[in-house]
Formats: sequence, C-alpha cells, structure tokens
Amino acid sequence: MIKSKIRTIPDFPKKGIMFRDITTLLKDAEGFHASIYDFKEHYKHYEIDLIVGIESRGFILGGALAYALGKGFVPIRKPGKLPGEKISFEYELEYGKDKIEIHKDAIEAGMKVLLIDDLIATGGTANAAAKLIEQLGGIVVECAFIVDLPDVGGRKRLEAAGHKVYCQVEFEGD
Amino acid sequence: MIKSKIRTIPDFPKKGIMFRDITTLLKDAEGFHASIYDFKEHYKHYEIDLIVGIESRGFILGGALAYALGKGFVPIRKPGKLPGEKISFEYELEYGKDKIEIHKDAIEAGMKVLLIDDLIATGGTANAAAKLIEQLGGIVVECAFIVDLPDVGGRKRLEAAGHKVYCQVEFEGD
Repeated sequence: MIKSKIRTIPDFPKKGIMFRDITTLLKDAEGFHASIYDFKEHYKHYEIDLIVGIESRGFILGGALAYALGKGFVPIRKPGKLPGEKISFEYELEYGKDKIEIHKDAIEAGMKVLLIDDLIATGGTANAAAKLIEQLGGIVVECAFIVDLPDVGGRKRLEAAGHKVYCQVEFEGD
Repeated sequence: MIKSKIRTIPDFPKKGIMFRDITTLLKDAEGFHASIYDFKEHYKHYEIDLIVGIESRGFILGGALAYALGKGFVPIRKPGKLPGEKISFEYELEYGKDKIEIHKDAIEAGMKVLLIDDLIATGGTANAAAKLIEQLGGIVVECAFIVDLPDVGGRKRLEAAGHKVYCQVEFEGD
C-alpha cells in the first residue's frame, strides 16, 4: 500500500534519474499514517532517546515519528541554516561536494539516536549524518528510510559501515 | 513551558536580529510533545482536510501535526525541489525577492487546509503560501505558528488579508 502511493517522475532532477516522489504518499492521510505507524510499530521496543532527521524530507517523517514515539527531534541541516554552535561534515557527491551540519549541543554523549530520511540512494548523506551523530558521542541505533534503491547500493554501504538499516519499500532497476 | 525552551541567539543570520531558535524546544521530548499536543487540541474540532507546511522547519511541525490529527501532509518548497507539475509565487523580501512552490495536484478545489510554520515575522512567506493554496482552490482554515513576533507585524498583515492566525508564544521587542 505504501509503495503504490509513491509516484515515479522520470528525468528529475536530471535526465536518466527515476525520481521516487513520496509527496503523493504524504498527502494521502491513510498512506502517511500507514508509513509513520509502521515505523512506530517497528521502533516501539527499541531504546531510543532522540530522532534525528535529515533536511528536508527527513524533517516531515522525523517530526511525525518523534511525536508518535514521544521523543525529541534534532535536525541535520544544510550549511548556514543552524543558528547555534555546530559541527559540519563534508562528503563527496558524484559531481562535487556537499556539507551538512548539526548543533553541537543537540546530542549528549551516550544518547541512542534513530536517524531518518525519506530515501536511501548512494547513502552518502546518511553516512555523513551518522558520522556527525557519532562525533557528538551519540549511538546510531538504526537508520530508517521509506524507500530503498538497492541497485544504487547505499544500504549495503551503510551496513558495511556497521549500521543497521530499516526500509519500508524497495524500487529496483534504478 | 514552550516559551522557556526556545533559545534566543543574537545577531543571526545578521547583526541586530534576535533569532528565536526552536531547535532547543524540538530536541526536548516534553517540549516537542507539548507544542504538537497544544496544536492537536486546538485543531481537533476544526474541519481540516490537509496540513500544509512551509520548508523547512514547518515540515517538522506539519509532519507531526498531520500524524497527530490523522491528516495528509503537503510541502510548500523552495524553487527547484518539487519534481512534479507545480505553481510558484514570488514575493518581496526586505532586500530582494524569494519564491516558493507547490505541486499542482497537491490540493483539490474546496479542500480545507491548515497552514503551519514555526514562526511568523513579517508574514511574507506565510502570505505567499496562503496564496498558493488559494490558487489551487484550497481554503486556508487557519495559519498556525509556534512563535509570533508581534512587533514585526506579520500576524496583523495575515489577519488583514482575511486569515485566522494561531500562535503558541510571543516574543516582544523584536
């Protein structure tokens, strides 16, 4: 049911990419509820102190899941957006580089953190986000995504780096 | 309680601005829950079809509130982020212009929409967001924010444009 509500838009943001668009899932009350409820059921017996979401779609899911589980929410943001003292992590993209940031006081050492985003492709951003959490002494309990693109290999990369990964649906052939 | 958990950072993003930083509220499980629960209680008897959140902090609150109320969520985004057919609205800032976008098929005519963001300052973005919703035939039931800066006048501007506004806390002197 979740998968059927995700729309595919070819050639976005560039030619050859099949963009898996979750906005059609999110705007559907039943679909959105089904996705967050599935995460909630999956994580309700985990020891988790904090939900960390990656800008921007990870904010929608992370905010909802933090409320559903009764936890706090911490944003990982693009450069220049966080007003307080922060640390950043730069990582390689296919073409060029990207950087993400987190507030220094967002996580206390030893805190158990669930990392969430909408989709895992190469895993570059999720891996960088996990490193930021660990730099602050946090423990990444698991990385959660609605969509896995297994042919792109991000899940395997995250698992090879020692992380547990949970995804709700897969799209093959990407 | 909500207000006491919001941090003020002077001179961000530029000298003279007192930035009201809700990340300290969001990371606090009790504080985040109190804010979303307050919105939920306020809106539980409203007729609402859809929650629309403004990128990026409005995504955190809008996602949580959509889940809490059992509604769908629609994002209003910065240019170039939405993959499907969209409409955009350009508006004036103090210096320069800004633009936001929404998917054309995100809202059906006659739908009752709750618009949410973290803070209202001049109201420029919220007003533009309301116009996008109305262009698609949606009805803006109310505009919700955690923080109002009454001295900046955005709330009054939104109300003068015919919108109802609900805010949880005020910071004066901005």
